[in-house]
Parts: sequence; structure tokens; C-alpha cells
Amino acid sequence: MDLFGTAGIRGSVEERVTPELALAVGRAVAAEMRATESDGTREGGAAREPEIVLARDGRVSGAALAAAMEAGLASGGVRVCRAGQLPTPALAHASQGRYGVMLTASHNPPADNGIKLFRDGSEFDREAERAVEERVAAEQPAAGWDEWTTTERVDTLGGYLDDVAAYAARFGADLDGLRIAVDCGNGMSAPATPTVLRRLGAEVVTLNGNVDGHFPGRGSKPTPETLRDLRAFVADANEGVAEPGRPGADGDSEGFAFAIGHDGDADRIVIVDADGEVVHEDTVLAILAERYTRESDADDPVVVTTPNASGRIDERVREAGGRVERVRLGALHEGIAAVRADAAADETTDTSVVFAAEPWKHIHVAFGGWIDGVVSAAVIARLVADVGLESLREPITERPYRKVSVDCPDEDKADVMDRLATTLPEAFSDATVDTDHGVRLEFADASWTLVRPSGTEPYVRVYAESDDVDALVGDVAGIVEDAVAEAA
Amino acid sequence: MDLFGTAGIRGSVEERVTPELALAVGRAVAAEMRATESDGTREGGAAREPEIVLARDGRVSGAALAAAMEAGLASGGVRVCRAGQLPTPALAHASQGRYGVMLTASHNPPADNGIKLFRDGSEFDREAERAVEERVAAEQPAAGWDEWTTTERVDTLGGYLDDVAAYAARFGADLDGLRIAVDCGNGMSAPATPTVLRRLGAEVVTLNGNVDGHFPGRGSKPTPETLRDLRAFVADANEGVAEPGRPGADGDSEGFAFAIGHDGDADRIVIVDADGEVVHEDTVLAILAERYTRESDADDPVVVTTPNASGRIDERVREAGGRVERVRLGALHEGIAAVRADAAADETTDTSVVFAAEPWKHIHVAFGGWIDGVVSAAVIARLVADVGLESLREPITERPYRKVSVDCPDEDKADVMDRLATTLPEAFSDATVDTDHGVRLEFADASWTLVRPSGTEPYVRVYAESDDVDALVGDVAGIVEDAVAEAA
Amino acid sequence: MDLFGTAGIRGSVEERVTPELALAVGRAVAAEMRATESDGTREGGAAREPEIVLARDGRVSGAALAAAMEAGLASGGVRVCRAGQLPTPALAHASQGRYGVMLTASHNPPADNGIKLFRDGSEFDREAERAVEERVAAEQPAAGWDEWTTTERVDTLGGYLDDVAAYAARFGADLDGLRIAVDCGNGMSAPATPTVLRRLGAEVVTLNGNVDGHFPGRGSKPTPETLRDLRAFVADANEGVAEPGRPGADGDSEGFAFAIGHDGDADRIVIVDADGEVVHEDTVLAILAERYTRESDADDPVVVTTPNASGRIDERVREAGGRVERVRLGALHEGIAAVRADAAADETTDTSVVFAAEPWKHIHVAFGGWIDGVVSAAVIARLVADVGLESLREPITERPYRKVSVDCPDEDKADVMDRLATTLPEAFSDATVDTDHGVRLEFADASWTLVRPSGTEPYVRVYAESDDVDALVGDVAGIVEDAVAEAA
Amino acid sequence: MDLFGTAGIRGSVEERVTPELALAVGRAVAAEMRATESDGTREGGAAREPEIVLARDGRVSGAALAAAMEAGLASGGVRVCRAGQLPTPALAHASQGRYGVMLTASHNPPADNGIKLFRDGSEFDREAERAVEERVAAEQPAAGWDEWTTTERVDTLGGYLDDVAAYAARFGADLDGLRIAVDCGNGMSAPATPTVLRRLGAEVVTLNGNVDGHFPGRGSKPTPETLRDLRAFVADANEGVAEPGRPGADGDSEGFAFAIGHDGDADRIVIVDADGEVVHEDTVLAILAERYTRESDADDPVVVTTPNASGRIDERVREAGGRVERVRLGALHEGIAAVRADAAADETTDTSVVFAAEPWKHIHVAFGGWIDGVVSAAVIARLVADVGLESLREPITERPYRKVSVDCPDEDKADVMDRLATTLPEAFSDATVDTDHGVRLEFADASWTLVRPSGTEPYVRVYAESDDVDALVGDVAGIVEDAVAEAA
Repeated sequence: MDLFGTAGIRGSVEERVTPELALAVGRAVAAEMRATESDGTREGGAAREPEIVLARDGRVSGAALAAAMEAGLASGGVRVCRAGQLPTPALAHASQGRYGVMLTASHNPPADNGIKLFRDGSEFDREAERAVEERVAAEQPAAGWDEWTTTERVDTLGGYLDDVAAYAARFGADLDGLRIAVDCGNGMSAPATPTVLRRLGAEVVTLNGNVDGHFPGRGSKPTPETLRDLRAFVADANEGVAEPGRPGADGDSEGFAFAIGHDGDADRIVIVDADGEVVHEDTVLAILAERYTRESDADDPVVVTTPNASGRIDERVREAGGRVERVRLGALHEGIAAVRADAAADETTDTSVVFAAEPWKHIHVAFGGWIDGVVSAAVIARLVADVGLESLREPITERPYRKVSVDCPDEDKADVMDRLATTLPEAFSDATVDTDHGVRLEFADASWTLVRPSGTEPYVRVYAESDDVDALVGDVAGIVEDAVAEAA
Repeated sequence: MDLFGTAGIRGSVEERVTPELALAVGRAVAAEMRATESDGTREGGAAREPEIVLARDGRVSGAALAAAMEAGLASGGVRVCRAGQLPTPALAHASQGRYGVMLTASHNPPADNGIKLFRDGSEFDREAERAVEERVAAEQPAAGWDEWTTTERVDTLGGYLDDVAAYAARFGADLDGLRIAVDCGNGMSAPATPTVLRRLGAEVVTLNGNVDGHFPGRGSKPTPETLRDLRAFVADANEGVAEPGRPGADGDSEGFAFAIGHDGDADRIVIVDADGEVVHEDTVLAILAERYTRESDADDPVVVTTPNASGRIDERVREAGGRVERVRLGALHEGIAAVRADAAADETTDTSVVFAAEPWKHIHVAFGGWIDGVVSAAVIARLVADVGLESLREPITERPYRKVSVDCPDEDKADVMDRLATTLPEAFSDATVDTDHGVRLEFADASWTLVRPSGTEPYVRVYAESDDVDALVGDVAGIVEDAVAEAA
Repeated sequence: MDLFGTAGIRGSVEERVTPELALAVGRAVAAEMRATESDGTREGGAAREPEIVLARDGRVSGAALAAAMEAGLASGGVRVCRAGQLPTPALAHASQGRYGVMLTASHNPPADNGIKLFRDGSEFDREAERAVEERVAAEQPAAGWDEWTTTERVDTLGGYLDDVAAYAARFGADLDGLRIAVDCGNGMSAPATPTVLRRLGAEVVTLNGNVDGHFPGRGSKPTPETLRDLRAFVADANEGVAEPGRPGADGDSEGFAFAIGHDGDADRIVIVDADGEVVHEDTVLAILAERYTRESDADDPVVVTTPNASGRIDERVREAGGRVERVRLGALHEGIAAVRADAAADETTDTSVVFAAEPWKHIHVAFGGWIDGVVSAAVIARLVADVGLESLREPITERPYRKVSVDCPDEDKADVMDRLATTLPEAFSDATVDTDHGVRLEFADASWTLVRPSGTEPYVRVYAESDDVDALVGDVAGIVEDAVAEAA
Repeated sequence: MDLFGTAGIRGSVEERVTPELALAVGRAVAAEMRATESDGTREGGAAREPEIVLARDGRVSGAALAAAMEAGLASGGVRVCRAGQLPTPALAHASQGRYGVMLTASHNPPADNGIKLFRDGSEFDREAERAVEERVAAEQPAAGWDEWTTTERVDTLGGYLDDVAAYAARFGADLDGLRIAVDCGNGMSAPATPTVLRRLGAEVVTLNGNVDGHFPGRGSKPTPETLRDLRAFVADANEGVAEPGRPGADGDSEGFAFAIGHDGDADRIVIVDADGEVVHEDTVLAILAERYTRESDADDPVVVTTPNASGRIDERVREAGGRVERVRLGALHEGIAAVRADAAADETTDTSVVFAAEPWKHIHVAFGGWIDGVVSAAVIARLVADVGLESLREPITERPYRKVSVDCPDEDKADVMDRLATTLPEAFSDATVDTDHGVRLEFADASWTLVRPSGTEPYVRVYAESDDVDALVGDVAGIVEDAVAEAA
């Protein structure tokens, strides 16, 4: 059974992520926890069962799925702490020192839901997911009746917000009246991001700050299109304002310094500038990646990112004295673990992962091993308060970007990619080649191209970012077409 | 599928009454509620969903099963009020004006649990149960995602106890320091019966008054054997006490006027006298039946009971000017409905069901249409405070009772019972015959015998109560053996 | 002691509305409830204590004050249902059939809080408030220790929203994709108004929809100034849109049909039109007043309002066949009671109060006897969906309005008002005169003037609305100055 | 102001420990916590407020007082975790790493209640109590409005029971079917002691195991008299049983190995033997003191106890290689602190407090610094399971005990005690003298006498334990009378 995709278990609650599935997964997770944690630290039959904290986002289906998950976990014999509605990063934070399960479909439409599993602040890796899949397939039975548990309620949001505020205070400057607009998209950032920013001193105006699982205010995925209300709001408010969002001589602020959009469960963040334009996601990554690299006192600071992330990140990280490692989409936590494993094997260098991110999703490693859009909001706000968003963007080169798809039957993909692993490096002999996740070529000026087979459709995708992107994409696509023709 | 037995759905939580089943039953009940209640009383798409209150007894498996049931109901689109742990009669009380579901296995061992369904204070009848069974068999799917509900918590015990206290106050006399011992058997009577009796003025000492789903104090079924601690406690405390449990000249009471034992969910009650002896269950029925009949101002007061209940009930009810109707075990609520249907059809007589009971289980019709051991405790305590337990028992004739089993293959049972329907009345031509539930013969002195096939074992059972019970049982068993021989 | 102002008890939580005061008021209310409700309906000492439901708005001080109030009520011996955070109208709704207490300072700044008392859906009248004041002054002691109560949690918001949606569905047309912007001001309308509008079919975008007791988004009082973000948002979104907020040919809506602003506890509502302009509060009153009058089938439909409310209301109500009665500010519930008392005394006419309102605050009498901004939002949205906001405003004449203050020492006010009661009617012999609350003159074209002493400052105020308002105000102010001079 | 007695704040809820007082104490404690804990460990204004956990016992007044305490704490600006009903030791356990407040009057009658304060598992010392008293006297005002907090619910009982079970498992043997009777006295031991014993393998029968703040089952203070039901129950059940409470050849147990009585909040424990007799409280102390001393691997194991505790403790502790220190009643935690302070000053010896106790109240130092009757129950049960209660008592010499009172005017007490500090040692030159808390003489055979003035009545008390106690008391009382005569 292949329950887990790149984003955990996710799908329609009527057909896929049903209460029946949630119960089965809960039962499987409980059994897996008991198998893993039976370390016999307590004598006399007085062992404490392993513990898991359970939360859900604001979706309509969340309460029923949480009850089913609770039934599976409790009849599986583990201790369950019900945390109610939370942003995903707050659940991850609460899973430190125990397990966690989050019911969320992130930015999917309202009819969907999903299941994300955490252990001690990190998402389950593939191996752990497979163990759960196998138990679900084997219809894991309940624990003995006298091992079933009664659940407890916990309130964890307050402690999370305390920790975020304390962490962000290390960066930049006091917000001190900075005006920020936040579009919560009726999702779980609503009780988190605006509160943290206000506590740090900002004046926050929210759009769609009421939690509503129908996502009535805008699509649940924050895109330039779905954020049009926010963008217009900011642009109009800033018209004719000299220093938008900053206190003037009278102490009052007009307009907004910048704006923030989140998805339904607040792992994802989009930054909108004072003109109402979305700041490119890779530029946001580059700002944070450079900052974390520069501040690190390790000899070998490493930023982990994904193949589709821009070379501008590499550029800034290199400039700051670090290096970039890439890992497949949805596997940042595995990438961090891999770098650490390598570092542990090599005692001669002081290597440290300082940041890990894929577009819109940031792991602030010093805070915790999970994607956290609320921390991103707080840290970026402090940085903006210090020097302004424009200064942060200034050193970053944004080159034109394009993506095209070349027809390729599914059965030929492996063959085509094999051929490209040879023909592409031959065609661009000056490029650095990386074939870990497709074929990625990077050039001296940090422009790059990535070729990889689509996972779901009969295409090979070509991505490129370059000052002359059309020429580069044209050349590469031609080589791909040749490979497809030869493979047929 | 044959989910429901005479006591609802009941069995091992590991094998039969699993969270998976609870979820499926919840989904089925929700669909059935919506099918039944869609009466369109609200305009403009603003209909309120039908509502159900959900409770559980103190069993270890209760919390997990309740979560599964909640998941089924909420994803089925009905409004769910979670009432936590309750005695079964308190849940029935809370189901008035809506639906109710009780997770309890009553007096079964701790590894079991069960599901009881209520509508407006009465258990589901067979037709409603069958509708649920069919939906479970058909794997009732979830409601549309946007109809799923979020559950609410409710506290209903306080209101129930208020109502019980107010109802009981109609009977007998103030308790005024009467001492009563109550063995709660670690079940759900613990937060109910002692509280009500104390509020009514009693001095209550409890045994096993801590709720514990392991039932550590005694077996969960109250029998003369499992109640031996209680019986010894009362007997020893009363040794040499003139008026046990009643305030003496100094205002203090010594010993106990009587004692009470409940099962795990407080529908069942056992009365123990001041000597530590269990009062026969039929005698308790007779006391209440006579009282309710005598107090009725209907022309035709009716008491509903079951075939295995003693003729002493008929004797007392007749004496008080009423009549008795019998219905199969576990179906008192259907018996009440049947009498009422007959009464409604016949406008010439003023018929009223004043009480319904089977051994240990009493429906106080004027209070509500459910079995209620807490009300029984309160009412009997007030009656005892008034005239003493001995005066209540005095008019009731307790004849010797016996029960024997005659071997009979399952496949012959129908034939045997057919034969007996003829041969038994022939053999006892002076008896009144009732063949509605087996063959029951009643004699002029209220002695009686009942012959019926066992539902689960290869026997035909013979019950009898008579001054010369051995002779009567011998005669009847002989006739049964003849019928078995002929049928073979 | 003079605890209650026109808006109940209200003030700084550090100095006036402290936990100590909340405890004292809770104790006093409990004692008053017990004195009022001791009706002996239960026998045998089994009386149920009177019940009160307790809620708070989203202010920072709310939780601590609620705990203090709970302590006062519970040690006063009444049953307390804790309802958590609610809009004031939802608490009023929940107080039906029992008592209610709401901790809110409505639109006051965040450092304030307040106490509003309800009985059966209506605010306490002066007499009941005085009884509480006297008990607070007398330091009402606790009830006997064995009468103290334990509180229960209740969830009442869901039922309220159901009822609002069902009620609003009687009016206008389906919302069916109508786009509406709602500025919740970080207050308690956030979980109510957007939800109801969405359920009725609207597409709702919220501003400041996250509940935050610091009111970070805007001032807690909705004024044209504090609503500037909302107004700009709507105006900009509607630029160049043909039918703002209505679905076009493609089924999608652009812009907003209108917008809504609430205060901190959602009793008050401000309507903003598609141009981003605030609709005059008296015009909103006139729309609703006319609608309710027209729909009434009473012979004598009455609208209750306050002296400062415009003659345009009278004009529309008269046009619809009803009449207007005025009562002092903050006393609409007393005005309703007075009209009903008169009606009860006169059996010849079928009089019915159909609506009661003061600027921004509306009592929808058929729904309940409290001010309810959530119902106003839902009803107005349905009316707008039907015919558009402009059509609703069209028949209403909005004349120029002015307010001036004439100096007058406090000690002369009574004398001055006495003189004006004579001189003003003499000066405007064609006007209808009403001297119940100051001196109010109304002219044939529904223009009017009101003269009354300020309650807090050394002025007599002159209000006027007229096509030639400067002339009218000038004339009236001259007469007032004469009276002041004569009185000196 | 002298709020705190030897047992914290305690008294009638109508007159002394009112909600008003609870609010004032809560406010004072919050201010004191903030003054003490302001350690500035968090930057950027993001400090986390100090935290306190709040619980109550089962008294009727508990809910209202807890609400008042919560109001005081929350308006004082500290974080409050509401833990509901708990035994006092469970609250102390939960206060580790933070503060704690327990609302309990321990064994006082039901009309009383009280306040006990904890910091990190230990009761407040006198200095901390005085700081609170001063703030209450000074009417500590609320914190600034924006520092008021919202409280959280926590469930802590489960974790406490886990820890008790794990701790007890270090001692003695598995309970394995041992039968134990527990009289919970309707107090807070009900959800704790029986559960722990059952989890450890015992068969537990409870008396008065339903929590009821009226203490209907027996007086709230466990004495030989109030425990008469329990004692008779055990004695009768054990009549004729060879090995009471131990599994026979058939695996079933009859009777009870021993029995336990607790007070209302489970800090106090009384042990009843298999004959239904109360085991002397000092004997229980001696059993535990010896065991802890013997198991210690410190060079200088110390047991802390009070002056009225018997010499048999000293005897057993000495035998096991340790020593005893005494401290005034109600100040065991201060005695522990004093011994530790001395030990810290002297680096040459390895001193360790291994146990601290006064009659009926035991601090299991290795478990935590609070009095804990639940741990006592679990540890003693394990010891009994190992060797039987009789073997545990066997080495302990129980000498006759007497207490007499000698008349002495209050104003002469100081003078009299001064004289006795000289005359008593002179009269008994072979005794060891301790004048820290009255005058205490101990003889070579561990017999002893203590003379001290009553704190509340015009007496000097003489306590003595000796094989010839009448002679010893006679001699001492004579010397006291002489001193009184001389002082007059």
C-alpha cells in the first residue's frame, strides 16, 4: 500500500482520507510507537506508554477525523494528548520529546484532508512511513482491552507563541509600530502569526483572519492570483505614502511595510512587498539562507534545498561562506539528516546545517526541525524592521525563469533520463552537473537548468533560470526531444 | 447482519464491539436519524441537524469507543453532544427530545462493551434496530464533507440528579438520617445513587464507590455471591442493633436500614435487607408494582413484565385493582408501546401503563420510559423510611422457585414447543395458559410454571414457583421429556 | 452606589471593573436571582437553583473577570453555565429562559471592560439594576457553604447561528454568491457574522477577523475614521466593476456589494456602501423600521427609537402604516415594555412593537428582545441580495444635520429646560411637540430639532435635521441662549 | 496579618477562607512570583510569565474558591494551569518546576476550606508565607490590563499515578492478588490510592470511594472512631481466615491483608491491621524510617521528625545506622532544608535526609519534598506483600503513652518554660535533653517525655512514652506544677 505521497497522506475525505482510514492509521501508528519505544525504563510493570499529541487544522472534516484518529491511537494503547486546532508548525513544536500527528491538507481544497506524522519535532522519514503502511495493510488489531487509554486535553499554542517570539527577538530590530498586513486565508495562521507580530510590536491588519474550513475568503493556496485582495489592499493603502508602514513624525504609521500570506495550516508563507507584488519565493529563500549562513560560526555551514530552487540561493550562500545541498522535494528533513550523517562520519570538519528550505517552506534549524511559516513571518518582520525589505532584496539577482514540458511516454522516461545524463553534460561542458534528482546543470553566473520526468503526467519537464532563458530552454528542450526520439 | 441481541449490541472489545464497529454503527445511526428527522421545519437551507447525546460507562475501553462513535456520527452529519461518563439511565434521561447512544456492557465482564441506542428517552425498537443493521451491512458512507459536524461537550448529570430527587420526593417519607449502604461495584452508580440519597437526607456509606473499569472490587454483575462483602458488612454492622439504620434517641444511627447493589451502568438494582440477605428480585417488583397500581387514578392500570417474573406480582397488582401484561425479556419498552397502542384503539376504557419491569430492572413510567436503577434506589429508600422494609415485604407471598433444563437438540425445539402448546394445557386443565413467550401456566394461587427453549444452548428450560415446587417441576419436566422423545 | 450607567457597568479594569467588583456583583446577582425565583415549584427540598449563563468578549481581561464573576455567582448559590467567548447578542440569546451575564465593554478601548445583565433575553431594567446595586453596597455575603455550586461548560454559539440563519431566511433573497466584506475589528463578531453570511450563501472576505483583545487592527469603535481600511478596500476593489459583488456571466463576482463593520461585541453594526462610504445610521434604521412595519399584520405597529434618531424614520414608518415611540438612550428594552404595558391596558387596539433601535443598534423584536448586530447583518444582506442597497436607500430623504452646544451652568439646566418647554413650542407653533426627553419639535416634512441638557458637561445641546439646517439651528440656539440668560 | 497557621490558611468558607480572601491571596502570590522569578532569561520583551498550577480537593466550596483564586492569579499576571480536583500530593507533584496552589482543608469538617502554597514541590516556608501576608495586607493591586492572562486546563493525575507506581516498584514484592481495603472517606484519595494499588496487582475494595464534599460516609479525619466501619469490615471478613488477603491454593484471596484510611486530601494515612486495629502512627513511621535509613548509601542518613513523635523511631533509625532530627510540627520541609544547609556547610561528611515524617504524614524524600499518603500506601503495600505486616512491626517496641495538661496562665508560660529548661534536666540527669521545641528528655531505652506550652489554651502539656508511663508522667507533671507555682 502506498499511503504516503510527498506531502504525507492527503486526499478527499469522502473517498480517501476517511474516518475509517484515520482510525486504521492511528492504530498502526500506536503499534509502531509501542514497538519502537519499548525500552523498559520503568520497573515493576509500571512502564509509561509512549505519548502522542494530536491536532487538526480548521477544516470542516477535522473534528470527525480527529475523533477517529483518537479512537485508533487509544485502542492501540498509547497515551493521546488532544491539542485541538493548531497550525502545523505548532503541532510539530508540541511533538518534541514525544510523537505528533497533524490532520491537515495544507493548501488543498476544503473537501480534502490529510495526515502528517511527527516524531520529536521531525516528520516521519520514509522508513517510518513504510512501517505504518505495512501495519495498515495488515489491519493492525487493537491492543488488549486493558491497555486502551483515556485521552487528555492539552493547550500548547501559548507556549509555542512564547517560543517563536523569543526566537525571533534574536534577529533584526524591534517592530515598534511597523504596520504589516496578513492574509490568513481563513486558516490556522490566524491565531498565530498576527498574535506573534503584535506581541513583537507590530500593528497588524488581517485579511481572512476568521478560521473557516470552507476557505470562503480566497483559495486555500496562496498564489499571486488568490492573494489579489491582499495585494490590492496593500498597493492602494500605500499610494502616495512616503515610508509605508513606518511611524512618521507623529508616531502614526500609514500603509504597510509589507504583507504576508499563509496557506491553510501555516507551514507555507508568501511575502508581498509594499507595491503589492509577490516577492519571488526563491528570493525569500536566498535572504534567509544568506542570513543564517553568515551568522553561523561553523566551519562548514550548509543550506539544504531542493532541485527546483534557484541558483540565486547558491550565490548568496557561497558569498556568505557556506554551501548548498539539494534533496528531492518534500524531503528536507531527510536532507538534513543525510548532511548530519555525513558530518558525523567525518571528524575533520565542523559541519552544521544552518537552514533548509524549498520554495515557500522554511525549516529554521536552530528553532526546530520542521517547516515553520510563523517563525518565517516573525524573523522576516524583524529583518524588515531593521533595514527594510528593499535592502534585503538588493544583493539578490533575479533572472528570468521558464518551465516547459516535452512529451514523453511513461514507459520511456527511464531510458530518456539515462540518455540525458550523458548528452546534456556533453552539450554544456562548462556547467557543473548534478544527477541526483534529474539532471541539473549550473553555470558560472548561477544560472541553471533542471530536467526531470514528471511523476504524474507523460512529460519530461525542463526548468531554467538565466539572463537569456529562452535560448537556454530552447537548447535543452531540443536535446530532450532527441533523447525521446531515440528512446522510442 | 444480526448486531442487536436482547441487550443491544454487546461483546468483547477486541473481537466484536471494536472501534471499527462503533464507527460503522455511528455512521449508520446518523444516516437513519437524518432519514427520519428530515421534516423541513426550517426554511432557506437553514435546517438544524438532528442531535444525539453520547455517553459511556466507566469501562477501560469507553474513551476509545466513544471517540470512534463520535467520528461515525459527526462524519454522518448529525450534531453530537459528548456527555462523558454517565449511568445508562442518566443518558436515557438526557436523550429526551433528541437521540442518545450509550456505550455500556451493563453487568458484563470488563473486557466487553456494548452500544445501546435511544430516541426521546426510549430504547430503539426492533424496527429501528433493523434499519441500523441494514445500514451497517451496506457500509453506509460518510455525508458530504461540508455536512460533517463539530461536537459539543455537555454536562447533564446535575440536571438528572435534580429530577430524580424531585420525583422521589413524591413517595414515602423524608430519609432524615436513615443509614443506607450502597455497593456501586466500581460502576457508574457511584456519582449518582449515593449523591441522590444524601441529598434526600440519608447517611450513605459506599462500597466500591470509586469508578474503575477493571471492576476490582467485585464482579460487575450484582449477585448474592458477588455482593458478599456488602452483605457481610451490613449483617455485622447490624448485629445487636435494635433499629438498624434509624436515628436513636441521641439522633445518631447505627447499622444500616437496608443496602443497595448496582451493576456497572446503574440500570440494575439489588436490594439487601438489614440481615444482609438479598431481597428476591420479584418481591422488589411486586412492592413497586402494587404501589404504582394503587396510586394510579386510571380505570385500567397496567403493569408490564416478562414471562419469568413471578406470579406474586400479578397477585399484588390484582389486589391493588390493576392487571399485568407480559412481554419477552429485554422488550419492556415494546410492551409499553403495545399496551398503549391497544388503549388508543379502544376509546371506552381509560388504560394507563403505570410500571414496567423485569427482574432487577424497573421502568418508572411517570419519570421516563427507560430502566432506571437510580430512581428505584431513591423511591425504595423513601418507602423504607416511611414504613420499613419488612412492612413492604409483608403482604407478598414468596413461594419456592426452581429452574431445570431438559436436553433438546436445537433442530427439534420448534417441534417440541408445538407439542407442548397442546400437551401442557391438557395436563393442567385448571391453569390459565399463555403461549405468547413459550408456554406459561398460572394457577389459582398465583403459582406458575414457564417452559421455553433456550436461545443459545440445546435445552428446553422449565421454570416454576409453587408451594410444592419439586412436584410441579417434576411433572412438567416429564411432559417436556415426552415431547422431546416424540419429536426426535 | 451608582454602578450602572446607560450601558451597564463599564470602565477601566485596573480601577473600576476589577475582579473584586466582578465578584461582588456576581454575589449580588445570585442573591437577587434566588430572591426572585424562589417559587417553590419542586417538592421535598429538591428545588433546582436558578441558572445563569456567563460569557465574555475577546478582551484581555475577560478570562480573569469571568473567573471572579463565576466565584461570586457560585458562592452565591446559583447554577452557572460558562459559555466562554461570545458576541453579546449570542449571550442574550442564550439567556432565554434563565439569566445571563456578559462581560464586555462593547466599543470602549482595550483597557476597559464591563458587565451587562440579562434576564430571559432582555437587559435588566432600572429596578433590577438598583436591587443589584443595593446588594453590592451592602456587601452581600456568600450563601451557606452547602449551597455553593460547581459550574458547567456550555457551547451555545452553534445554536445561536442556526437560529440567526433560519430567522434571516424569512427576508429578501438568497445570497447566492454575493460578495460582502466584513471588518470584525478583532472582536466577537468574527466567529459569528462571517459564518452566518457564508452559510446563507455569501462570499465573505474579512478584515481583522482574528479575535485579539488588544484591538490591533483598528479602534474598537467603528466610525468612518476607524473603518478607513475597510472603506478603501471596498472602494478600490469596486473601481471599474459594473455590478460590484454580484456574480457575472461567468458566475464569478468581483468587488463587494457592500461592507459591514462591527464593534468589539457585535451589538453595533455600520453599513458601508459599494463606494466605500458609510451609510447614515438613521438611514439603516429607516430601512429596517419600514420593512418591519410593512410586514406586520398588527393594526397598530409601533417602532421604538430614541430622541436623537432622525425624522426620516418617522417618515418611513408612517408611510408604511405604523407609528414611532421614543425613549431615552440606552433604554430601548424599557421602551418596548412601556408600549406593551399600554397596549395591554387598552383592549380595543391590536398594538405590536415590530422593531426598536437607536443609531447603530437594532432590536429585532420577532427574534428576541436584545440588540443584535449579527441579525442585522444577515437581514440586511438578504435585503441587499434582493433589490440592491441603492433601492433600499432610495425612498429615504437624508436631510442635512447639525449639532451645537450652548453654554449653560449645571445648576441652571432644570430651570432652562422648564422655560424652553414653553418658549420653543410658542416659537414654532406649526411643530408637533414632545417633551418626554428634552424638547423635541417635529415639522410636517419630517425635519426636526431636539434640545436637551448634556448629562456630563455644562451645555445644552441643540440637534437638528432639516433642508435648511443652519437657519433652524440658528433660530433654536437663539431661543436657548435667551432662556439661559433669563435663568441666570 | 497572620494568615498562615501550622497547616497553611484554613477555616470556614463563610467567614474566613472566602472567595474574597482567595482572590486577594491569588493576587498576592502572583505578585510575589513575578518579583521572585523576574530573571530576564528571555530577550526582546518576550519573557514567559512564571507559571502556577491550581487544584482543589472535593469540597463543596472548592469550585467557587478555585475560580476566585484563578481570578486573583490571572489578574496578577501569572500563567495559571487549572488542574481540577486532585489529592494534595498530586498537586505538589505537579508543582515541580513551577508553583502550585492547593485548595484544601485536609481533614477539617466540610464547611471549611484552605489554601496551601507550593514552589517546586515544597510548601512555602515562613519567609515566603510572610511575603504573601504582607501583600494581602497591602491590598496588592492587579497587574496592568495587558498583562492579565488566560488560564489553561491541564490533566496531571495520570502522570502522577504513573510516577507513584514506578517509585513504589522499587520496594518489597509484587502485590499479586493481595487484598486490601481502602476507606477513602469520600475524599481525593479515591481516584488515586485504589487505582495505584490495583495497577500494582492488588485486589482493592473501597469504602466511601465516591468523592463527596459533604463527607457523608464518615468524619473527614481518619481516627479509630471514624474508621469503625472499615475496622469492623476488615475484622469480620478475616474471621476464621488463615492467611487474610493472600491467595490460597485456588488462587483466590479471602479477607484483607490490611486496610488503609485517608483524610480528605490524601496527605494523611492510617494503617489498619488484619484484626481491624489501627497500627500506631509512630510504628508506621518507624517502619518507613528504618527502611529508608537502611537502604541509604550515605555516610550520615538523617530522618527528620517532630517532637511529639515516639522514641521508637529513634531506636529503629539508630539500629539501621542513621540519626533523627526534630523540627516543630507542620515544618518538616523546613527541617529538611535546615539539615541540608548544615550538610552543605560541612564538606567532611556525606549527609542525606532519607525520610521526614510526623504522625500520619510522610515525606518520601527520594520521590519528592511533600507529604504523600498515596506513596505511603503503595510502598507499605509492597512491603506487606513481601514479608507481612506483622514482620514489619515485630522489631518495634510500643511502649505505653500518656498525655496530661497542667493549668498555666498564658502570661506565665514563657517564665515556666524557662524554669523547666533548668529543673527538668536536673531532675533526670541520665536523660538526653533537647530544648529546641519545648523540653524533650530521652532515656537510654528510647522512652521519652516532652513538655511544651499549648499554643491555644491555658495549659502546659506533658507527653510521655515509657514502660512505666504513669510514674514518668507523675514525676514530670509534679515538676511542671512546681514551676507554675513559682512563676505565679
